[in-house]
Amino acid sequence: MPDTAPDRVTAAVMIIGDEILSGRTQDTNLRDIARYLAVHGVDLAEARTVPDVHEEIVAALNALRARYDYVITTGGIGPTHDDITADAVAAAFGVELYENEEIIALLKARSGLELNAARRRMARVPEGGELVRNPVSGPPGFMIGNVFVLAGVPSIMRGMLEDVGHRLKGGAVTVSRTVRVEGSGEGVIAAPLEAVAKAHRDMSLGSYPFFGDAGYGSNLVLRGRDPVELAAVVDELIAALKGAGIESVTEIETA
Amino acid sequence: MPDTAPDRVTAAVMIIGDEILSGRTQDTNLRDIARYLAVHGVDLAEARTVPDVHEEIVAALNALRARYDYVITTGGIGPTHDDITADAVAAAFGVELYENEEIIALLKARSGLELNAARRRMARVPEGGELVRNPVSGPPGFMIGNVFVLAGVPSIMRGMLEDVGHRLKGGAVTVSRTVRVEGSGEGVIAAPLEAVAKAHRDMSLGSYPFFGDAGYGSNLVLRGRDPVELAAVVDELIAALKGAGIESVTEIETA
Repeated sequence: MPDTAPDRVTAAVMIIGDEILSGRTQDTNLRDIARYLAVHGVDLAEARTVPDVHEEIVAALNALRARYDYVITTGGIGPTHDDITADAVAAAFGVELYENEEIIALLKARSGLELNAARRRMARVPEGGELVRNPVSGPPGFMIGNVFVLAGVPSIMRGMLEDVGHRLKGGAVTVSRTVRVEGSGEGVIAAPLEAVAKAHRDMSLGSYPFFGDAGYGSNLVLRGRDPVELAAVVDELIAALKGAGIESVTEIETA
Repeated sequence: MPDTAPDRVTAAVMIIGDEILSGRTQDTNLRDIARYLAVHGVDLAEARTVPDVHEEIVAALNALRARYDYVITTGGIGPTHDDITADAVAAAFGVELYENEEIIALLKARSGLELNAARRRMARVPEGGELVRNPVSGPPGFMIGNVFVLAGVPSIMRGMLEDVGHRLKGGAVTVSRTVRVEGSGEGVIAAPLEAVAKAHRDMSLGSYPFFGDAGYGSNLVLRGRDPVELAAVVDELIAALKGAGIESVTEIETA
């Protein structure tokens, strides 16, 4: 990972929710956000999962927003008592929450529902925040400073992401290519892979082994900023693997 | 979450790997570890995902192992150059790595493979470490201090976990029960749920909404240490929900 690249733009994800830490819910938001950020040239540099505890959210958010260009949080913005993300984000920034008229109007228009205290909670936004549109259902998220506060429900989170990208100053977009080795394990692959990695430190080369009924091997993923350089390194890697006596080496389409 | 419970035993998970942060791989280890720990009476209190960068792993591990009773790491213990977990764990503890004879013997016995430099990497264990058995394939993990270092491949990780539980001093085991509300949203559920939660602060009450073709509603999950108290709170919650005019309220089997 090119930590020292001058144009590197970084982000952290903060997943808020006891349901993830209890193992009740399988998080998928991290992967979706990571892929979305990559397309926008932003490197996801760290992720944290924290419980529904005010002090924990405040501390983690302040640590992450100081360190990375952006922080994206998921979860804890519904109407129930355990939805404390807005309160914690406001506390982290040292500002108050206010009731946003636009959200109130949205909630009223949606279904003519009576706006009880619980629903009104969802209209609270920190002073200085901007709304993040929710094209799926329910109230919007918000951004404040370099922090985007999104829903935890995956379909809603993905919808909100569409209103995030145009606000990111993207770094150079990372391109990736994948070389697939079949019938050879990492023990054989390691030496040629490492030689190529050491010769190209501005690239990221990772080895992701697979095995199962269909056989075994490893997918070697190369990432870089420069597609021309990347293509040359792919050729170099394939030659190095074949030079080490590995026969089944093919480039495959990257997902 | 009963942070102040005197018998609370805590753990953190540290997921190591660029493949998670790039969005290439969907992590499932966090959920599996969380469920495993819960059965052993240990609360998963935080999780971090860090890149394959030495300094990042060292810093995160030292922060987590100082704060929680246990840390479980996944990933980065294979033979390739990007597998740097053992080096980073040794650095965090300020000890050296040594080549473990038991692992060397295991690797030799496994398949009569030549032990090249890459495979020998997997036999390196920090001074003072103990092995964590790997019943699936390949070399074992290890523990040092309060840190368990496991593989990243989910099937291998789960196998290694079986050699972790008997080394944990478990807290009281948490029991959970689930009340399912159908046809009412969180906006209606919030007030009675919060009232019950406030009356029982030693319990964890979470609301996990669902919606789809089959309808909508929310699963309310109650967790506590005392099954008798928990049963009473389930009854109280059901009564409170029905008292708020919510009709479809049933207890369901917890997964």
